[in-house]
Amino acid sequence: MPANTTFRPPSVAQVEVAGFWGARVDAVASRTADILYDRCVEARMLEQIDPDIPSPGVVIPFHSMSPTGNEFTGATVTTQMFWDSDWGKTIETAAYSLYRRRNDELERKIDAVIDLFGKLQQEDGYLSSWYQRIQPGLRWTNLRDCHELYCAGHLIEGAVAYFQATGKRKLLDIMCRFADHIGEMFGAEPGKRKGYCGHEEIELALVKLGRVTGQRKYLELARYFVDQRGQQPHYFDEEARARGADPKDYHFKTYEYNQSHKPVREQNKVVGHAVRAMYLYAGMADIAAEFADDSLRTALERLWNDLTSKNLYVTGGLGPSAANEGFTSDYDLPNETAYAETCASVALVFWASRMLGVGPNRRYADVMEQALYNGSISGLSLDGSRFFYENPLESRGRHNRWKWHRCPCCPPNIGRMVASIGTYIYGLGERAVAVHLYGDSSIRFEVEGREVVLTQASRYPWDGAVSIKFDMDRPLRFKLHLRIPGWCPRAQLTINGEGVDVEDVLADGYVTLDREWEGTDVIRLDLDMPARRIYANPRVRQDAGRVALARGPIVYCVEEVDNPEPLHSLVLPSATSIEAVEAPDLLGGVVTLSGQAVADRSSDWGDTLYRSARPVREQTMVRAVPYFAWDNRQPGEMRVWLRDEP
Amino acid sequence: MPANTTFRPPSVAQVEVAGFWGARVDAVASRTADILYDRCVEARMLEQIDPDIPSPGVVIPFHSMSPTGNEFTGATVTTQMFWDSDWGKTIETAAYSLYRRRNDELERKIDAVIDLFGKLQQEDGYLSSWYQRIQPGLRWTNLRDCHELYCAGHLIEGAVAYFQATGKRKLLDIMCRFADHIGEMFGAEPGKRKGYCGHEEIELALVKLGRVTGQRKYLELARYFVDQRGQQPHYFDEEARARGADPKDYHFKTYEYNQSHKPVREQNKVVGHAVRAMYLYAGMADIAAEFADDSLRTALERLWNDLTSKNLYVTGGLGPSAANEGFTSDYDLPNETAYAETCASVALVFWASRMLGVGPNRRYADVMEQALYNGSISGLSLDGSRFFYENPLESRGRHNRWKWHRCPCCPPNIGRMVASIGTYIYGLGERAVAVHLYGDSSIRFEVEGREVVLTQASRYPWDGAVSIKFDMDRPLRFKLHLRIPGWCPRAQLTINGEGVDVEDVLADGYVTLDREWEGTDVIRLDLDMPARRIYANPRVRQDAGRVALARGPIVYCVEEVDNPEPLHSLVLPSATSIEAVEAPDLLGGVVTLSGQAVADRSSDWGDTLYRSARPVREQTMVRAVPYFAWDNRQPGEMRVWLRDEP
Repeated sequence: MPANTTFRPPSVAQVEVAGFWGARVDAVASRTADILYDRCVEARMLEQIDPDIPSPGVVIPFHSMSPTGNEFTGATVTTQMFWDSDWGKTIETAAYSLYRRRNDELERKIDAVIDLFGKLQQEDGYLSSWYQRIQPGLRWTNLRDCHELYCAGHLIEGAVAYFQATGKRKLLDIMCRFADHIGEMFGAEPGKRKGYCGHEEIELALVKLGRVTGQRKYLELARYFVDQRGQQPHYFDEEARARGADPKDYHFKTYEYNQSHKPVREQNKVVGHAVRAMYLYAGMADIAAEFADDSLRTALERLWNDLTSKNLYVTGGLGPSAANEGFTSDYDLPNETAYAETCASVALVFWASRMLGVGPNRRYADVMEQALYNGSISGLSLDGSRFFYENPLESRGRHNRWKWHRCPCCPPNIGRMVASIGTYIYGLGERAVAVHLYGDSSIRFEVEGREVVLTQASRYPWDGAVSIKFDMDRPLRFKLHLRIPGWCPRAQLTINGEGVDVEDVLADGYVTLDREWEGTDVIRLDLDMPARRIYANPRVRQDAGRVALARGPIVYCVEEVDNPEPLHSLVLPSATSIEAVEAPDLLGGVVTLSGQAVADRSSDWGDTLYRSARPVREQTMVRAVPYFAWDNRQPGEMRVWLRDEP
Repeated sequence: MPANTTFRPPSVAQVEVAGFWGARVDAVASRTADILYDRCVEARMLEQIDPDIPSPGVVIPFHSMSPTGNEFTGATVTTQMFWDSDWGKTIETAAYSLYRRRNDELERKIDAVIDLFGKLQQEDGYLSSWYQRIQPGLRWTNLRDCHELYCAGHLIEGAVAYFQATGKRKLLDIMCRFADHIGEMFGAEPGKRKGYCGHEEIELALVKLGRVTGQRKYLELARYFVDQRGQQPHYFDEEARARGADPKDYHFKTYEYNQSHKPVREQNKVVGHAVRAMYLYAGMADIAAEFADDSLRTALERLWNDLTSKNLYVTGGLGPSAANEGFTSDYDLPNETAYAETCASVALVFWASRMLGVGPNRRYADVMEQALYNGSISGLSLDGSRFFYENPLESRGRHNRWKWHRCPCCPPNIGRMVASIGTYIYGLGERAVAVHLYGDSSIRFEVEGREVVLTQASRYPWDGAVSIKFDMDRPLRFKLHLRIPGWCPRAQLTINGEGVDVEDVLADGYVTLDREWEGTDVIRLDLDMPARRIYANPRVRQDAGRVALARGPIVYCVEEVDNPEPLHSLVLPSATSIEAVEAPDLLGGVVTLSGQAVADRSSDWGDTLYRSARPVREQTMVRAVPYFAWDNRQPGEMRVWLRDEP
């Protein structure tokens, strides 16, 4: 299938992490994974998939599903059409967590959930708790709005992960039967429906299914869904008319919302619902790699450029608007009202990692790192128990983590991403290993049938010093690709103490070392990691006259608890030197950034609202903490973009 | 009734205006007044009040009445419960306009409207097109939500104005009968209902009715409505239960929305719907003056302080939030999303002018002027034909004037205010005349039974030089009060060429000249009017690091058409000198403000979204125009608060 030059992520089993990501994975494995299952049960999601009990809950209309920030209280039970997907991601999170920590009780519970899906599945392979239990008789009548194939996709991903982690085939077999049924219903062949899902996801899931089963038909079905999207006559128009509805009577007005406004190869702007867009592009990237499809690749590069040059928050968040949970117009990046859904940043990580499938390239890995360390893991509290749906870059103190959500897509999404972090750190090619991300970890892989263990030791992201060693029973020749991050002003590399000129061997932002490696070799990479100021393109109205702080991959914010409030009074003059300070007891151990700032003084302003004299300035200190760690102490104001002055 | 020290506005008939206000009044008298009638007809509002034809339209529920910014197209006809009020204000605007310009056709049309109201009125005096034609049988069942007494109030104001302008009593008699009926239904006396309106207005209207008819009972009814508001047991609770509803099931959650959360004398924060609040306070000020009620006066002063020190836009706009069309929290003054309804600024002018009822005081007149020259008349296009409902202080170019509105309260409100501008310029007391505002105009009044004509000549607000002369047939002693605006750094005064030390005779911001005046006397007042910078209290987060420009009473803004865009790139360094430039051909003749600014350059930024180097600065010129005149040319960006740098 893949050409020799392609790179694939390792499996979760191949990578062990410690240090920064070790702590995050531990939080998921020891708390989040169980919490996801427990919350699903509290929300009465078990009842929806259990065919032996009456259909539960209250059906709520599609358009009232938008998140409200309310915690789940158990008082109001609502039934959601996308709950199967939440089970899928919960299963996937549990599966990855089992590599980290044995959890027999959770495994038993997941087995029981899988049993229910098995009982629920119809003879013909069809499986949807919504259409079997809540809206019987209506299956395949509204692909545009009703997440039917999306749910299938997430259950497939869960099935693949659970099979890999436990060896248990039951859910995998269930989902293969369902995938076969889907393949009978949809496709380019005469007699099949020309549909595809309004919420992309099935595409990338079928690629995973094809890879784990070795069945090319699943890859081909995924390719069909990608190729058919946005073709004329438009399936969603025809489908609407078939159910007696006017296609124009569409809540989101434009098919840009679900990226079916034109065929995917003609798309050049990231539009619509951000998570849908990222899932589509991730699926396209898989298909581009699996089928060596340059036309898809070209489209993806245009879309990548559009996202990263005009529509991405500095945190790696994306999709500024709550109205469409997605994109608005170029350079529109409001801070306080940023939607920047956790799922969208997680999905950007998925897309970026797949763009690395044709080889190491900093263009993608830098953004993957940006989303990983900032706008995605901000969605999970440090202890793994509470969540953000939206990830604004500014808050007056009332945006706080919640226990659960009416639309609980984000918790299991961040859970599965963190628990499988090893698959993003490394990439494996033919006689090649790429180190995309740094930090305490090791990976096992084979070269010429012999096992190699590559071990990184590093305090990254708090320190840029990395050492790499190998463990193998005889010398082996392979390529080692080491990323030199775009944020790094100076990188020094030695092999067994001998310096290597990084610039000499740099291509696409990676150092490539092609030699015969021995078990005694020691590579040292020192990435300079000064605190730095970040300015936004002047076209971004919301960041005009503002500056953000970062160090290495970490974007910082100021929180009320550490600073004089109100935070809008703080100004960071350009002459201020920013100092990195180790804070081992703060927020699980972080590096903070501190500097001298000035603040507009309101205490002596008096009782007037306006005056002709500028506010008096007073000296103060500013202390910034990593953005991902905000709102883990008492609630308060937060902002990423501080006022700047030359 | 009033004590000797009270001041009352002159009637519209007593004042003639030219210059700045003359042009505005001409626009209303020659265009707006007719347009108001025509749009009401287009919206099928005649059909609602005509008892001889079937009840028209589609009833739309209360909560879908919030303005959407859509123009009235005639395609969708919706019937509004507050249309009687729009007729009332349309009649009032027409009435005042008749002083300026004879308009027999409009007068004939208004007479016909009045005839319909006459036919509609019930035997017992009751009059409401909504409750008689759309929801029969439900009168007086929902004072909280349904604008029943509010509509009566506006029709009373229209009746008083039309009687004064034309001498025609018909509508006045109709409304006296209705007011009598209201007085039978509501009051403190046993057997009467203890109600009052959810939307204040009847209070100030009854004061006008009392004054024009000389009937004290209307003043007393007004006082009852003021006194009863917010008393326990709460009328809106009892009324809700009486119609079988749960009082807690209230869309706006809190009675702060309609200022009935506590008795008015206990109120100390401006809260809820801004127009309702201003109308209430205006009515309270009337009652305080008519009944010499110091407890009301004390409450009003607290409320005034709360509004002007924490909750007023620099434009004299108020009520930042669309959700409640009103106030949020102290110092919350968002610029782009400012609701700042035209009606609210108009109503602030009403309140402020009534606060001058106990004597000239700059504390009130300065704010009246601020609202008059900025946030109120911004609601009317220069030609008098198009309107703003919201008056934001920043726009990306998509906030544009509309032809009509589903909730058409603002057009006739700004129309009646402008057409009666003379009543705000002057105040008349016993042997006293106060000049609250400057500008080409004259007022006729009597002293000792002799007519005095005071004539101002001034290019105000574009120039601070004012000359005042008298025309009278013999010398007369009276006090002349001249306001020295708070924004004025230096005022020079001469009488017949002899200097008067302003500071010596200044009290409450007014110079008081008490002498025997002769027809040959010439007063010259020179108010220095430098361009000035305005800074907001540092507690206002949205204006942090921003500066506004003003000159005299005029607040300025920058528009895209005059400046390099995007406007968020512009920075006004403190060293910049701001120059006032006469622009006789621009926007009907204005003074612009110009200065050197710098702008963040985006042209050479390239294709990246973020970088470590601050944007390059380039020199540019900034040209500001009066805020009230914005969006009278091509659509584009606008902002009042510019980026500031020390």
